Amino acid sequence: MALPPTARRADGVVDPSGSLTDVAGITVGHHQRIGRGWQTGTTAILARDGATAGVDVRGGGPGTRETDLLRPENLIQQVHGICLTGGSAYGLAAAGGVMAELEAAGIGYAVGQQAGFVVPIVPAAVIFDLGRGGTFANRPDHDFGRRATRSARGTGERNGSVGAGAGAVAGRLQGGVGSASVRLASGIIVAALAVVNAAGSVIDPTTGLPWDVAAHRLRRPSRSDRALLMDAIAPPVPPTLLASPSTPSSLNTTIGVVATTARLSKAECTKVASVSHDGMARAIRPAHSMFDGDTVFALATGLDELPDPASTGFRTDGTRPAALNTILEAAALCFAAACTQAIVSATSIGGPLAYRDLCPSAFRDG
Amino acid sequence: MALPPTARRADGVVDPSGSLTDVAGITVGHHQRIGRGWQTGTTAILARDGATAGVDVRGGGPGTRETDLLRPENLIQQVHGICLTGGSAYGLAAAGGVMAELEAAGIGYAVGQQAGFVVPIVPAAVIFDLGRGGTFANRPDHDFGRRATRSARGTGERNGSVGAGAGAVAGRLQGGVGSASVRLASGIIVAALAVVNAAGSVIDPTTGLPWDVAAHRLRRPSRSDRALLMDAIAPPVPPTLLASPSTPSSLNTTIGVVATTARLSKAECTKVASVSHDGMARAIRPAHSMFDGDTVFALATGLDELPDPASTGFRTDGTRPAALNTILEAAALCFAAACTQAIVSATSIGGPLAYRDLCPSAFRDG
Repeated sequence: MALPPTARRADGVVDPSGSLTDVAGITVGHHQRIGRGWQTGTTAILARDGATAGVDVRGGGPGTRETDLLRPENLIQQVHGICLTGGSAYGLAAAGGVMAELEAAGIGYAVGQQAGFVVPIVPAAVIFDLGRGGTFANRPDHDFGRRATRSARGTGERNGSVGAGAGAVAGRLQGGVGSASVRLASGIIVAALAVVNAAGSVIDPTTGLPWDVAAHRLRRPSRSDRALLMDAIAPPVPPTLLASPSTPSSLNTTIGVVATTARLSKAECTKVASVSHDGMARAIRPAHSMFDGDTVFALATGLDELPDPASTGFRTDGTRPAALNTILEAAALCFAAACTQAIVSATSIGGPLAYRDLCPSAFRDG
Repeated sequence: MALPPTARRADGVVDPSGSLTDVAGITVGHHQRIGRGWQTGTTAILARDGATAGVDVRGGGPGTRETDLLRPENLIQQVHGICLTGGSAYGLAAAGGVMAELEAAGIGYAVGQQAGFVVPIVPAAVIFDLGRGGTFANRPDHDFGRRATRSARGTGERNGSVGAGAGAVAGRLQGGVGSASVRLASGIIVAALAVVNAAGSVIDPTTGLPWDVAAHRLRRPSRSDRALLMDAIAPPVPPTLLASPSTPSSLNTTIGVVATTARLSKAECTKVASVSHDGMARAIRPAHSMFDGDTVFALATGLDELPDPASTGFRTDGTRPAALNTILEAAALCFAAACTQAIVSATSIGGPLAYRDLCPSAFRDG
């Protein structure tokens, strides 16, 4: 069940009903299996015409693929997709399925004289959801990547227990996939998709609301709902620091993608990915622990020019970094809103309860 | 004027009246000049017996010294001090003054057969405060570093417009130096010192309180105080994203140090420094922009052993990373509290008004 549709927000206001596909050229597909020992899935984010990309890995326990080529000094400038998936390190195989579908379509980095000799560039990151469906060996494989890719669409992106979020848990609540977008005054669109499988708390215990709710139409839940919620998410959360230390079994992760219509360099995409983690830090507390694999990719499709495109950065008058700053700020806000959206759009599917089922009073229109 | 003294907080609760010097072996000294064309200064944080160190530079416009040697793979394991200073890149000269005082005391990395042949290791980071006192050429030099070092003490550390915070501005309010500390249930102490000179907003416009107030005894300010405050800190702040983009003249920065009594490796200190930026992200919005030089150092004095000290990380049972997680979480909480403390302990000294002068009602005891 999605949130009631809201009127499209004004320019400059983050829209939690927005989608990564609000950035033209980006499509998103999910494949998941839930039930009969399964609870996991794969999300394929495609940029069939290519997108400049960057990444920042800030968790202490990441599982990734093709992230080294994203370093600004390395050869490849554009990627053709990002694969987010369950299955921990095993799930990285799903990226091969995304590649196979793109190769079949002739999409990739050209490596030969013949058309069709291509290598699709598909960086990937995983969440830990092994065994959540009951069977440790049930995890995304090559076929999950193919199916997620084939289902990719440019509209109607779903949130909740889909794709890579199918097996996600968020601080003792049902986790999942969330998204958000914003149109800047310049016309540039920035959007985020987050898979929240966080060990950290996503709820402020003093209010019973998600930590980052600025973009969301939620109201303070009733005292009784709050009591139920606090009971469900015990033990105590920060700032007491007296909770038992996390144990290795609580391997968790928030992974995601921020996309923009701006034309950015790889180095600028790297900075966008990096600052997006500020949104994660605001929405999930703590974040970036030794047991989190927190990773954010940034994609820039290049439709909208920033000021001073010819700048080398050496004699810049500052207009380009100032314009980049608005994208950085939007990226952090969208990523935080996407993390919150993952929590509020999640539904209970047999694992931990969903926030909306524990706290229905937060959703009543005030 | 400091906050009214509060009872020492219980274990596990961040104490905003705590100090970096709550970590035994760390001393802090400030030197500043305010008035007659001056408004800048230098803070020397000393570890005369050495401390293992790490750093994470996440701002787009940093000014630093001796940060490359802090990479985990490089030779030097311990530093003898950290120099935080005003004066933008010019102010890096102050670190030489800290070195000179330490050399005279025979403290440093031994480089010869004779006692006294030492090179003190003193990484440094700067804030941009050029011209804030009226004269562009008035900036910290070698002598500022010497004086800050000579004034270093293990108790009675001051916050506000002192040392590197003398010329600091925080989102149109008076900035400065703030600190906080926490004692974990394990007995390990974690403490932070932040110099807040941020371009980002430090105040939540919906409440009139700092963004991160969990550790502070503040109450929602009166409607009239809030109106004055909003007027003072206009233009609008996030989440509207419609504010004019920052201009190069708003070069700003939050720099600081997190220290702990734990015995950590350089790589672990690097992770502590990295996660401390989550506290910055929560207290200052936006953070880490292209015009910020945001930098956090981490120091570990090594008094308290973590579990599993002999672990290579290859066959660890997870107890060591779990223990490190409590330090990471504490570091983020302390750094956020220190940023907020910098705002609430600042006093108006002729530049922008201080929060406490604009919002006295936030400080009344409820």
